Amino acid sequence: MSDTAVDQPELSELRRVFDGRWGRIREEARQALRRPEFGLAADLDRDAHRQHVWEQLQQLAKVGHSRLGFPTRYGGEGDTGGSVVSFEMLGYGDLSLMVKSGVQWGLFGGAIQALGTDRHHERYLPAVMSLDLPGCFAMTETGHGSDVQHLRTIATYDPETREFVVETPHEAARKDYIGGAARDARLAVVFAQLITQGESHGVHAFLVPIRDDAGNPCPGVRIGDCGGKAGLSGVDNGRLWFDRVRIPRENLLNRYGDVAEDGTYSSPIENSSRRFFTMLGTLVRGRVSVAGGAGSATQTALAIAVRYGEVRRQFAAPGRDREVALLDYLAHQRALLPALAKTYALRFAQEELVTTLHELQPADGLATAASPAGVQHGADGPRPSVDTGSGDARDDGEAAERRQRELEARAAGLKAIATWHASATIQACREACGGAGYLTENRLPQLRADTDVFTTFEGDNRVLLQLVAKGLLTGYRDQVGDLDALGMVRFFADQVWEAVAERTSARNLLDRLRRVAPGRDEEGDLRDREWHLALFEDREKHVLDGLARRLRKAGEPDADAFAVFNDAQDHVLRLARVHVEQVLLEAFTGAVDRVEDPDTRALLDRVCSLFALSTIEADLAWFLGHGRMTPGRAKRVTAAVNELCQELRPHALTLVEAFGIPEDWLDAPIAQGAEEQRQDTMHAFDTGAPETRAEARRAG
Amino acid sequence: MSDTAVDQPELSELRRVFDGRWGRIREEARQALRRPEFGLAADLDRDAHRQHVWEQLQQLAKVGHSRLGFPTRYGGEGDTGGSVVSFEMLGYGDLSLMVKSGVQWGLFGGAIQALGTDRHHERYLPAVMSLDLPGCFAMTETGHGSDVQHLRTIATYDPETREFVVETPHEAARKDYIGGAARDARLAVVFAQLITQGESHGVHAFLVPIRDDAGNPCPGVRIGDCGGKAGLSGVDNGRLWFDRVRIPRENLLNRYGDVAEDGTYSSPIENSSRRFFTMLGTLVRGRVSVAGGAGSATQTALAIAVRYGEVRRQFAAPGRDREVALLDYLAHQRALLPALAKTYALRFAQEELVTTLHELQPADGLATAASPAGVQHGADGPRPSVDTGSGDARDDGEAAERRQRELEARAAGLKAIATWHASATIQACREACGGAGYLTENRLPQLRADTDVFTTFEGDNRVLLQLVAKGLLTGYRDQVGDLDALGMVRFFADQVWEAVAERTSARNLLDRLRRVAPGRDEEGDLRDREWHLALFEDREKHVLDGLARRLRKAGEPDADAFAVFNDAQDHVLRLARVHVEQVLLEAFTGAVDRVEDPDTRALLDRVCSLFALSTIEADLAWFLGHGRMTPGRAKRVTAAVNELCQELRPHALTLVEAFGIPEDWLDAPIAQGAEEQRQDTMHAFDTGAPETRAEARRAG
Repeated sequence: MSDTAVDQPELSELRRVFDGRWGRIREEARQALRRPEFGLAADLDRDAHRQHVWEQLQQLAKVGHSRLGFPTRYGGEGDTGGSVVSFEMLGYGDLSLMVKSGVQWGLFGGAIQALGTDRHHERYLPAVMSLDLPGCFAMTETGHGSDVQHLRTIATYDPETREFVVETPHEAARKDYIGGAARDARLAVVFAQLITQGESHGVHAFLVPIRDDAGNPCPGVRIGDCGGKAGLSGVDNGRLWFDRVRIPRENLLNRYGDVAEDGTYSSPIENSSRRFFTMLGTLVRGRVSVAGGAGSATQTALAIAVRYGEVRRQFAAPGRDREVALLDYLAHQRALLPALAKTYALRFAQEELVTTLHELQPADGLATAASPAGVQHGADGPRPSVDTGSGDARDDGEAAERRQRELEARAAGLKAIATWHASATIQACREACGGAGYLTENRLPQLRADTDVFTTFEGDNRVLLQLVAKGLLTGYRDQVGDLDALGMVRFFADQVWEAVAERTSARNLLDRLRRVAPGRDEEGDLRDREWHLALFEDREKHVLDGLARRLRKAGEPDADAFAVFNDAQDHVLRLARVHVEQVLLEAFTGAVDRVEDPDTRALLDRVCSLFALSTIEADLAWFLGHGRMTPGRAKRVTAAVNELCQELRPHALTLVEAFGIPEDWLDAPIAQGAEEQRQDTMHAFDTGAPETRAEARRAG
Repeated sequence: MSDTAVDQPELSELRRVFDGRWGRIREEARQALRRPEFGLAADLDRDAHRQHVWEQLQQLAKVGHSRLGFPTRYGGEGDTGGSVVSFEMLGYGDLSLMVKSGVQWGLFGGAIQALGTDRHHERYLPAVMSLDLPGCFAMTETGHGSDVQHLRTIATYDPETREFVVETPHEAARKDYIGGAARDARLAVVFAQLITQGESHGVHAFLVPIRDDAGNPCPGVRIGDCGGKAGLSGVDNGRLWFDRVRIPRENLLNRYGDVAEDGTYSSPIENSSRRFFTMLGTLVRGRVSVAGGAGSATQTALAIAVRYGEVRRQFAAPGRDREVALLDYLAHQRALLPALAKTYALRFAQEELVTTLHELQPADGLATAASPAGVQHGADGPRPSVDTGSGDARDDGEAAERRQRELEARAAGLKAIATWHASATIQACREACGGAGYLTENRLPQLRADTDVFTTFEGDNRVLLQLVAKGLLTGYRDQVGDLDALGMVRFFADQVWEAVAERTSARNLLDRLRRVAPGRDEEGDLRDREWHLALFEDREKHVLDGLARRLRKAGEPDADAFAVFNDAQDHVLRLARVHVEQVLLEAFTGAVDRVEDPDTRALLDRVCSLFALSTIEADLAWFLGHGRMTPGRAKRVTAAVNELCQELRPHALTLVEAFGIPEDWLDAPIAQGAEEQRQDTMHAFDTGAPETRAEARRAG
């Protein structure tokens, strides 16, 4: 294999590439979070863990983590992208702290920022940043999580007193799983149906005080504790019931809809559904952040498992004087290395996504978007994931909306795939560490349990993928967020075919058919990136075509529209998955292209090939079934994945070291005390001599 | 779909089929475990949970759970199969209690029973059963888990004092993850290399007291606590170090090897490797039990998720007056119903496996095997999973050994597939319940975390699958347990081809080719069970052929035998998987054939079809790539899985009710308070009227 070996690149160069545009923020976070007060909490019970995280959160506010994403005019740093990256960095430590900070500064503070107006910003944002005003984000209800458009909490305007009356009309309408509600939050952003003058205007956000300064529930507010959870025990999730709670009119976050003193409703957006999804769209940073945080946890797990796989040995082999290191087994490589490759792909796609978010939703508003504070626009930075249109004078409203919708779809797709990847990869890492991986001291159990909820919070992954598919089907021209089955069916019936037909024009078709023609593939290089890209693009288009054709039937007379939609649901999810895979491959390819150092580039290029080929391998049934690949080439794909695993095996440690996880955070004996695990294959049962350095130390 | 609907069978009949041969034991367990002292522990910290489980274990000893698997002459009930089933029943409750009971009566007591002789049985078994003597099973070491043949703990015979000196020679040789060691165990079965007269005779089991009656460590024994784990917090896993601990010569469990007073070693089995794996083989009940326990936890999770999917509704749909129940969505059905079908398949395969174990390893010895106490041999019972040879007078030693090896391989394979299935299915159930599924009160987090370790304890699943493959390659003629890479490579090089060639004779080949010929499949019924069986059998044989061919290269001159073996490792795992899938399908088919009630039979037949077709769908790449299926038929497979999901959807609740899980054990609000979750699709924001019965209750 000497002709296929790549040289080990400089770790610093690889890390620079991995760190990306916000590398400075990452490095600052590594320094700041190294302080002992941010250390991992060992084995605390729920109450103690909550208290510990609460204290850490106050420390975080002091080091300025909280200010990054807020406008400079209120004391923030106006760096949207930096705020996401900073959140991501917390994902290497205790995820309870990460989520708790996300609730306070992302969801709670972010909602005030995005949905409120100056009067709210001035009054609240400084105290939000300093944590003098702890809050929560009360959207989800027991009965409505995915379908938040139909939340049941009610806020009825009373012109007599110029107040809203907030009410939980029945048990399923209680606010549920609300981070911060059980213990710390004093003010809640409550999402409720706004009713005024006898008319409902859809869901709006209201500021509702839930606890007084002494920590007691406010009158009319009942608070419950969700109690134990699989993980995240440092986050105080709770339930809220409102019994005709009165709040001033001004507590409506009124950027997208307002009620005059006399009860007259007004909004810059006529259609209530469109208005609601516009509001939701401003909160997309939450999903982007979860995708990033999931990435950090995944990287930590991989770093632990790869280190363990280097030192733990099992079974003798002919011609080897020591037992075989776990990572030398193909099955072990198979369990970890394709996951490692996908982790890199997700990292690069995340970088693009954050760049897009940063440019489309600048913390200081569009006026200052061109050069937000603290961010360097390098020539070698990634493209935004969608055309952000910055600097284009002809930019019009429709195009801006379309970009926003594409951002939302991209965020939804990456969030879904990144969080499932986290669950699966951390699980694989746990199993790869055997019994040791089951022990809390080795961190994997907590990583697994803490990240588990990521697949369903900030949007259930399957629902999010449907949102991705809808965006593709409509060319981002329809309100993407509206996933009411009725709405989807009607939309598909009317418009889908046209939109899709436009996207998959004959010229494209011919072009891609030429690239992936089955006749040509026998002799082709399996690592040809152009071939991978063509294959992924062709697959997405084909799946999209087929789905559009199926959904069109919903519009036929006598069609059971729901049945047509429902029967195609697996096809819908499939479209979203293949789309995200294409996004990942493109992002990875782009990142490799930007690397100048040849060794780093050569290594990343192989990692990218492993990602591409292992993704193709996982979907071989499709490629075979659709004539995109011959059986012979399909077998070669599997062989190529095996080869790449073996070629990358010597670089596995370098690839995880590039994550730049501070040693303190890899606080797992199996990741640190490598020597303790070392042993050799000599069957020296008849000697009392120490066999390892660890033993020698112990004996000494 | 009216022509495809099946009638709802009687639940009692379905449950009878599901319960199987040891139905009486199951029913007794349901009654006994309903008592309040076996209730689930709510939210205890580690110390309290350990104490709680310890107290429950004492109650279990009193109700007689502990006696089932032990010989009648020492007060047991002589029912091997019953003991496994009884363990399995504990899997519906707190899995810490299940594992704790498995340690005491399965591993610890079972080792004394299987590896000891009368002197040990008389002295220890009564106190083991009554829990007067709590013990542990100290096999795994930090450095050796899968490769237990090469454990490093040493027991050296000292003829001067007629004692063994037990020693931990270095840190990696400490006993690790040992259930019971941290708190409760007083006596340990310690596996150590037996050395006498300067010669090592391989690993043997020794009884080593580790704590005195006051609970203090015995002299020379150091005990550590493994601390927190992902789950099973009620089990006190610990570490043991032995510093020249002296034990009487009689403490060697001497069934398969003994040391005379003067230090002379003797054994009925000459070859030390063969001896060791014979010993291990007697302990196979542990793996069978884990497979069963994993099944119970899986069933509990499915019961919770299916109930929730029936009542939780989300999103409106045209033509429906209420929001759509989650289980009506195809994506939701896809997430749960194929897993439910496989759960049934595993249940029936487990029943066969337990029957085989029961007949090959009777608790009272072979003399009384024909009619063990408390077991009814019904004419409609399952076949044992392998020919147990009972009643065959010509039965000889070689055949018996082969059957034993087949049992071991079958147990290894089912354990691996059942425990992975548990992890994946409980995870799917958690996600299917959204945020509610993340709450401890709904049990899914604990089920997920507790079962997680099953994939690596009692044998790492990937290692176990290699054992399955080795059995297939050798026709069970070699010592199956020996997975030392060196041994495997040599064996493959020498003998594999011959054994495989014999198994896949030309006649078989022609027969199966006729059945699965691609030309015939376009028009064939996709639910034809004969076709499924032929397809599965053909696939196993083809994978086996191919693997044997690859491994043969290891025997060529200049071959790097380890590389040949390692490069084929994914192929090895694949062979084992497809084999187990074939075993599952055959067991399921057999179970359906034995059902007389037509409605029950019709329903189970569909569930079996869903299992077969979803399994085929998951491996479509292979069937397409090997010309076993045309692309057109492959698409129809996916469509057929969707159809079966929709046909079985109305029966989902019945299928989980058939598990017979007592209501107390489904102690999850989302599974019990169905009405609490109910709500309708009326957008009645302008009315204060209660919409649900739950709300009416609350208001009243």
